Amino acid sequence: MFKSILENVQKTSPLIHNITNYVTVNDVANVILACGASPIMADDSEEVEDITSICSALNINIGTLNKNTIKSMLLAGKKANELNHPVVLDPVGVGASSLRNNTAKELLENIKFDVIRGNISEIKFLATGIGSGKGVDAGIDDVVSEENLDSIVEFVKSFSKKTESVIAITGAIDLISDSEKCFVIRNGRAEMGKITGTGCQLSGLITSFVAANQDNILEATAAAVATMGLSGEIGWANMKQTDGNSTYRNRIIDAIYNMSGEKLEEGAKFEIK
Amino acid sequence: MFKSILENVQKTSPLIHNITNYVTVNDVANVILACGASPIMADDSEEVEDITSICSALNINIGTLNKNTIKSMLLAGKKANELNHPVVLDPVGVGASSLRNNTAKELLENIKFDVIRGNISEIKFLATGIGSGKGVDAGIDDVVSEENLDSIVEFVKSFSKKTESVIAITGAIDLISDSEKCFVIRNGRAEMGKITGTGCQLSGLITSFVAANQDNILEATAAAVATMGLSGEIGWANMKQTDGNSTYRNRIIDAIYNMSGEKLEEGAKFEIK
Amino acid sequence: MFKSILENVQKTSPLIHNITNYVTVNDVANVILACGASPIMADDSEEVEDITSICSALNINIGTLNKNTIKSMLLAGKKANELNHPVVLDPVGVGASSLRNNTAKELLENIKFDVIRGNISEIKFLATGIGSGKGVDAGIDDVVSEENLDSIVEFVKSFSKKTESVIAITGAIDLISDSEKCFVIRNGRAEMGKITGTGCQLSGLITSFVAANQDNILEATAAAVATMGLSGEIGWANMKQTDGNSTYRNRIIDAIYNMSGEKLEEGAKFEIK
Repeated sequence: MFKSILENVQKTSPLIHNITNYVTVNDVANVILACGASPIMADDSEEVEDITSICSALNINIGTLNKNTIKSMLLAGKKANELNHPVVLDPVGVGASSLRNNTAKELLENIKFDVIRGNISEIKFLATGIGSGKGVDAGIDDVVSEENLDSIVEFVKSFSKKTESVIAITGAIDLISDSEKCFVIRNGRAEMGKITGTGCQLSGLITSFVAANQDNILEATAAAVATMGLSGEIGWANMKQTDGNSTYRNRIIDAIYNMSGEKLEEGAKFEIK
Repeated sequence: MFKSILENVQKTSPLIHNITNYVTVNDVANVILACGASPIMADDSEEVEDITSICSALNINIGTLNKNTIKSMLLAGKKANELNHPVVLDPVGVGASSLRNNTAKELLENIKFDVIRGNISEIKFLATGIGSGKGVDAGIDDVVSEENLDSIVEFVKSFSKKTESVIAITGAIDLISDSEKCFVIRNGRAEMGKITGTGCQLSGLITSFVAANQDNILEATAAAVATMGLSGEIGWANMKQTDGNSTYRNRIIDAIYNMSGEKLEEGAKFEIK
Repeated sequence: MFKSILENVQKTSPLIHNITNYVTVNDVANVILACGASPIMADDSEEVEDITSICSALNINIGTLNKNTIKSMLLAGKKANELNHPVVLDPVGVGASSLRNNTAKELLENIKFDVIRGNISEIKFLATGIGSGKGVDAGIDDVVSEENLDSIVEFVKSFSKKTESVIAITGAIDLISDSEKCFVIRNGRAEMGKITGTGCQLSGLITSFVAANQDNILEATAAAVATMGLSGEIGWANMKQTDGNSTYRNRIIDAIYNMSGEKLEEGAKFEIK
């Protein structure tokens, strides 16, 4: 199933509108190109509705939000909803400032998101307003492990039901869930956390996958998460002794570029709960 | 001839003022350094005139334009014109939104550009106001091929005459033209389109080349285009099986860094029409 | 001594708040991760005080300053001072525009910086208001050499005394000084100047090192400078014939990622004046 999902991206090459942060934006654009889609970044409020209208899906990332781009996120999100384009939210660093918290709240109240992807701290904060987040990384108390897996699966299903969004919690173990079904994915490597923006890249990938598979948002999101994790494994296998996080970044994007439906189908490690 | 043009850049190391997008800005800076010039990025309206004044040329790229930077583009462009500094326009994504279209129009009305570089969709839009652009990439109907080459050569000459700018249309075949003479360049590889910002990088390269060769804008632009295409070929020759678009990006910039006048003279594939 | 300083960063993984430019921000984030710390970039005036409050130190870089971020720099800097968090200033391109000059002056008047790092042109401009700066790179008259070393050591000590900041002048020879003691470091390679943002990366590294060694700001700054220079040497040793500045960038960050206390202690080349 993941095979045809990836192949749909490669065949249809959807155009993806990104309102994202300036830290990781170049990698996000290259990841979107690597998987076969096409990126456009635009965040001025005077043009975001035009841009969203010619795209297939919208990726909103609050990593370096500001007064101007918050307005643009709202305008673009509403327009995308009107046009029935899939919309993805990456609530980077929610919990770290009132501005981020209020913005996330305002976005959730005004826009229907098809997918929300974050680390466990960010998703918990969205769900409960209480976080243990450490800036943009997950707090150390917030780790999905084999021990607490079942209770977090229940949590993510219930938060998905409440938001009517597919929820993706990514980390050592990834959970991708709608209200009934939860993919538990065990691809990836811990070293991916030493690269800035692997989360942002994944949100760009998810947006590309759902854009090309609009009838199948849950599976498309899971396929994107598996693609990222598997690419992290393949990229790591290509590392030499003197390589570090900067080269690892390149090797992961390269692995996405070289991913095929067959490789993905074979390498994805998941169960459904 | 291309040999001495590149060597002039390497010898004089001109300082280049860039008002450009935040997606590809780091690669643009590294490309400008790679060819021997020196970049400065500055886009606040309170400083762009100062910055332009200490530079040799100005590169304006509308990739992620906003209200503040549009103002800065106009101020810097007028100042550069006053000082007789070469000015280059990269109309990224023109045709994709009213804001981009209106901005491009305003820039063309207020600033004399020495060079305008875009893909065929963007240049056609500037010339006719009618585009088939697909976001920031060329639309599929808009391809320069051996079949339509002569008619597009005529088009680019006439648009150059109208704007009094050297026009560079880059893609599978590159056309660099003033009103009388058109360089047709056949360097490069299709895979360059899978890297974000090769167009932006090329505009940075063009600005560097014209800054160091102000009496020879047409040939300097053609030499920059040939340098980029040839570097794309050299970079590809250095790719290994597991490499993808992220590593290819590095290898192209590396090839620009290692380019010599001799290599360029030998590797450039062009005819003049 | 440098050994334990680096190990403190790796052990405590301090969270670093960066208000920095959009040109080199991705590399700055990856360098901060590479050395064992954790970056957050945030520059909207409505959130910078919140963000600074959850971090251990603040890095202010004026590379692409604008009206909005200048306000944020002032707010965040004052808050960090209140909280006794170390604050680092990178006065990129000061001397190149009135906006940069006035901003640097305003920042120095309103914020107590623990460390100020720049090239010799930038630091001279801060000290005297007279510069020979060439954009963001050091002017050619401004080179620290064996001939003028002693007089520049005196200059940097006296500027440190005046500002009550540790001053780091980085270039072919690096000087890191408080009012009494000056580290003269001879690591690094000239080719690092062909990569955009090695200075910005170093300022991110310094902020990480002082965050984890707050009782030892002078030595922590010197250790960061030595780490950067030594990583430049190690990265260069790993270069192949076809590699250029883009790959060199990756190899330097990789070398920081792979740096150990032992390697640093062994490879650091410095004397104290």
